[in-house]
Amino acid sequence: MKDGTGLLETIDGPDRLKELTADQLEKLAGEIREKIIGTVSRNGGHLAPNLGVVELAIALHRVFHAPEDKIIWDVGHQCYPHKLLTGRAGEFDTIRRTGGLSGFTRTGESPYDCFGAGHAGTAISAAMGFSAAESLSGGHDHVVAVVGDGALICGISLEALNNLRSTCRKLIVVLNDNKMSISESIGAIPNYLNRIITGRNYNRFKALAKMMVHRLPGGKNVIGNIQNLEASLKNLFVPGIFFEELGIRYVGPIDGHKLPELIRTFERIKDFTRPVLVHVVTEKGRGCDFASEDPEHFHGTGAFHPDTGKSARPTGDTFSAAFGRILTDLTETDPRVVSVTAAMASGCGITDEYRQKFPDRFFDVGIAEEHALVFASGLAAAGYRPVVAIYATFAQRALDCIFHDAALQDLPVMICLDRAGIVEDGPTHHGIHDLGFLRSIPNLAILLPRSEAELQMMMTEAHRRQTGPVVIRYPKSASGYSPDDRPAPLEWGRAEIRRQGTDLVLWAAGRETKTAEETADILKEKYGISAAVVNTRFLRPFDRETFLSFAEHMPVATLEDHVKEGGLASQAAELLAESSAASRSRLFPFGWSAGEILPHGKTADIRQSRGMTPRQIAETLTEYLKTMSDHAS
Amino acid sequence: MKDGTGLLETIDGPDRLKELTADQLEKLAGEIREKIIGTVSRNGGHLAPNLGVVELAIALHRVFHAPEDKIIWDVGHQCYPHKLLTGRAGEFDTIRRTGGLSGFTRTGESPYDCFGAGHAGTAISAAMGFSAAESLSGGHDHVVAVVGDGALICGISLEALNNLRSTCRKLIVVLNDNKMSISESIGAIPNYLNRIITGRNYNRFKALAKMMVHRLPGGKNVIGNIQNLEASLKNLFVPGIFFEELGIRYVGPIDGHKLPELIRTFERIKDFTRPVLVHVVTEKGRGCDFASEDPEHFHGTGAFHPDTGKSARPTGDTFSAAFGRILTDLTETDPRVVSVTAAMASGCGITDEYRQKFPDRFFDVGIAEEHALVFASGLAAAGYRPVVAIYATFAQRALDCIFHDAALQDLPVMICLDRAGIVEDGPTHHGIHDLGFLRSIPNLAILLPRSEAELQMMMTEAHRRQTGPVVIRYPKSASGYSPDDRPAPLEWGRAEIRRQGTDLVLWAAGRETKTAEETADILKEKYGISAAVVNTRFLRPFDRETFLSFAEHMPVATLEDHVKEGGLASQAAELLAESSAASRSRLFPFGWSAGEILPHGKTADIRQSRGMTPRQIAETLTEYLKTMSDHAS
Repeated sequence: MKDGTGLLETIDGPDRLKELTADQLEKLAGEIREKIIGTVSRNGGHLAPNLGVVELAIALHRVFHAPEDKIIWDVGHQCYPHKLLTGRAGEFDTIRRTGGLSGFTRTGESPYDCFGAGHAGTAISAAMGFSAAESLSGGHDHVVAVVGDGALICGISLEALNNLRSTCRKLIVVLNDNKMSISESIGAIPNYLNRIITGRNYNRFKALAKMMVHRLPGGKNVIGNIQNLEASLKNLFVPGIFFEELGIRYVGPIDGHKLPELIRTFERIKDFTRPVLVHVVTEKGRGCDFASEDPEHFHGTGAFHPDTGKSARPTGDTFSAAFGRILTDLTETDPRVVSVTAAMASGCGITDEYRQKFPDRFFDVGIAEEHALVFASGLAAAGYRPVVAIYATFAQRALDCIFHDAALQDLPVMICLDRAGIVEDGPTHHGIHDLGFLRSIPNLAILLPRSEAELQMMMTEAHRRQTGPVVIRYPKSASGYSPDDRPAPLEWGRAEIRRQGTDLVLWAAGRETKTAEETADILKEKYGISAAVVNTRFLRPFDRETFLSFAEHMPVATLEDHVKEGGLASQAAELLAESSAASRSRLFPFGWSAGEILPHGKTADIRQSRGMTPRQIAETLTEYLKTMSDHAS
Repeated sequence: MKDGTGLLETIDGPDRLKELTADQLEKLAGEIREKIIGTVSRNGGHLAPNLGVVELAIALHRVFHAPEDKIIWDVGHQCYPHKLLTGRAGEFDTIRRTGGLSGFTRTGESPYDCFGAGHAGTAISAAMGFSAAESLSGGHDHVVAVVGDGALICGISLEALNNLRSTCRKLIVVLNDNKMSISESIGAIPNYLNRIITGRNYNRFKALAKMMVHRLPGGKNVIGNIQNLEASLKNLFVPGIFFEELGIRYVGPIDGHKLPELIRTFERIKDFTRPVLVHVVTEKGRGCDFASEDPEHFHGTGAFHPDTGKSARPTGDTFSAAFGRILTDLTETDPRVVSVTAAMASGCGITDEYRQKFPDRFFDVGIAEEHALVFASGLAAAGYRPVVAIYATFAQRALDCIFHDAALQDLPVMICLDRAGIVEDGPTHHGIHDLGFLRSIPNLAILLPRSEAELQMMMTEAHRRQTGPVVIRYPKSASGYSPDDRPAPLEWGRAEIRRQGTDLVLWAAGRETKTAEETADILKEKYGISAAVVNTRFLRPFDRETFLSFAEHMPVATLEDHVKEGGLASQAAELLAESSAASRSRLFPFGWSAGEILPHGKTADIRQSRGMTPRQIAETLTEYLKTMSDHAS
């Protein structure tokens, strides 16, 4: 498969779309699909969501006049066709690469990205802001929010729908209904949408109407006219009454892959003077067999063969895979263990086998992190032992629920945060901000495993103790420790001393223990500096005693895959600043800067450019120590 | 008015209710109202919400068998009748007092409080946890969630409703519909509920059905039978179709003050084997003229005269009042200024006059903090200058939106956090956890005014600069500074030196500057210690230069109305630990401990018992300094 060439190259902006014939638009759709499959096969990225909205993006940019008209893509992971149509086809090969285009909408990248995203459910609220602004300023530009059915059930989207009619005179919500969030969409609203699509609402109504008319004394006379009654009532009551009752005009369902129908519909509704929801039915992965057959796998993917979809499977263990195994063990051995996720089951390592084996004890609540945490707290209050699997960045949505529902009530909820630390997806997805809040919550233990084997020890021990809420936090992919690695026995609240040293101590959080050990090797070999290495294990309760026993004798460097404000470095600084015994010690914190927005790209590149590789850390520390001794002498 | 006596005294638990006659239950309701009015008139507390649910609480405890059956009160501020009926009438006089009963449900207080709350919208999710647990364990206890219409539109409630049918076989949601959150309920769902109550849905349907039947060729023959058709269709489509489409059986509307109807309904539906929503219509403030006439004022109140509702109005200025004035000024002078709140307008100082004067530029989105922040970010992206008014504790719901929508996009959203610091309401409401997360967010400025006059300077300057998101954070009530107080001119990122000193520096956050100044007076007068006092003003960007210029020469004490982990003390510790120049300095942090759950009660009592009064701080510091000099000598 080669990248599309021809029409796409001529599209320097959405105005060009307005000159194309229907046939040309169809051809363009094909070229966009080829371009996306080719590029994602090399760069990795979101494949299936983008293939599903090719016609939708073309139709929107054909009918509306961006950037004056605002088109806001919820989550932003389905923005590739939009990027290709708004002057970014030439740079598209760089998408998600270090220094290249973002895989999401980003206001700094283009005036056509009027509002950025990365987390789900914000588009309607943001669009309402633009729409209210249009009303206030007397403008007449259109505002369109494109929302998937998976993101529609997110609390923010629903809060926005409740406010839509009373806040906005005009706003177009395009519901991109593909029956999926990352995995299958969950709950009553997706079910409702599905009934609309399959006509089951209408069938239900039809049967009932027939029955009722039969029951009327004069009913037999009118049975021939049932179709008229049906037609009238259908418009009144089905299919979109759920939205109509919210004061939102419902239009649909529309086939999201038929360009003429899409264009006709948007032309028809664009000047409606009340909020309208256009229900567009799309197929995730459309036009690519392997993606449409396994849209969950091809939601977001690494590089793959463009013809077959095959990719090099990661070898060796990962934190996610280890989590899945341990969860299975716990669920098998303790009938009180249940698991809860928010549309991140496979990403967190919860396997299909697990879901099939424990259908009653596994709860995927959809993109609803807050509900997930409160629901889990309810289960815990009722005597169960919930394990919540969620990405660190998305846990930010539920911080108040971790505090208000799990922690204040000291409930045994085990919260496992995957994807903690920097990731390839960029600013919205780095899991590097959670600890500052979590560390201030009463009753909450915070555990940081350095390896898959240690994750196992920590989950097992947290489950055994069952004394309150626990956060266990680990990065994507693998620790780098050998499968033969055997962590020292776990003692609650105690750090693991990995090696002794005399010149300084490297105090590491989670997988950064590996970084610290490599740094210590370099310090020893290259600079003759003897560095102790300690694995924090517990950010709370923190091992003050071990920390101070080192800090009394040597400077401390902290290493963490988190911003330096709020996490391990803050914990260390607080102890040093308060302790008279350690008052001669200095602190050298290594981590990310809260003041900087870290970009997307390879995590190795981000580390390298911020001085976070073992070699760079060793160099920096050597420099620091030299300056210290110069001062002292 | 005297407190009720008689029946209520005999109610040692809900079982007693089951023995009472209908007349006795009515009498009991009257006694409960008297008791609540009398007690709240002395202790302050939530008045109108509790008066509205007296019959509801009686009916629930009459029909269900708590504590085996679980009754979960959303928010918990309407739990007074529940407490009086579950063995706590004898202690009820202590409610909200230091060491007394909590003003909310609290699991530690009683087995009848099976799940605690304080923030809105968690009851359905928590109840789903209990219901799922019943299913898993094969139990048959009932689970009831009582949710107000104001809390129903909160994102968590809506996420829960979406998941209810697919997760739970049995669950009873009692919708306590009083058309209010703290202020009037907002949005399409409350409108919808109101149409149900007033029968307007039904009327709309009736008119349309008539019209359609007339149009049928044989229609005239069946017009006499229209009632039959109506009755059938009414049951099918109205009034609760919104909930029915979510897979939830709708029952109602029910008069929430008619005990027989309530009891009959709960008896009828309690064994339904699918989730059911019972729509109960209540009057907030029922049975108390002044409360039912002004339910917003009497939602939560201080002490008042039990016959007239009159209370001693606070004299002097408050932060909230100052905020309201400054917001009015900004809105008057800059047409781009708009304001957004989440059902906290009057609590935040936004006056009725303001709302009437700027109806198009004031947005109360209801209890929907996340939507409020994203909507405000959309307004900012569209060129407007939103000011978001919200309590610090409820802002915890929107931390991810502050990060993901306002800060990552560097949008000029001014977020004013009222009620920062400890409050009388207790653990769920203390605003003492926010800074650890906020301080790690890029682009975000964090300002801490020490007085009303400084709040004015900060809001004015933040608005003038308009360079990105700003959090301005201040406590409830007054600063204690005289109206004549004139803060030094504001320089962005610079602290205000209040007084010089030679022995140590008291570095204070916001209103704690007042505490620091009083502490310095005592240190001087009683102990002969010369303490400098600095008002932080900017937690970010922090005035490192001024901080280090003091820290080089003297020990540092930090004072903040926040936990010591994550806020000012962490900032100070980080600078001290990293700085070689300040390496001889010690840090003495004063604030709350993250490990402790602070109780409810008078804030003065909490301060006193935790050593946070000026006198205590002066004593502690004197002791510290003595120990330091002993060590040094």
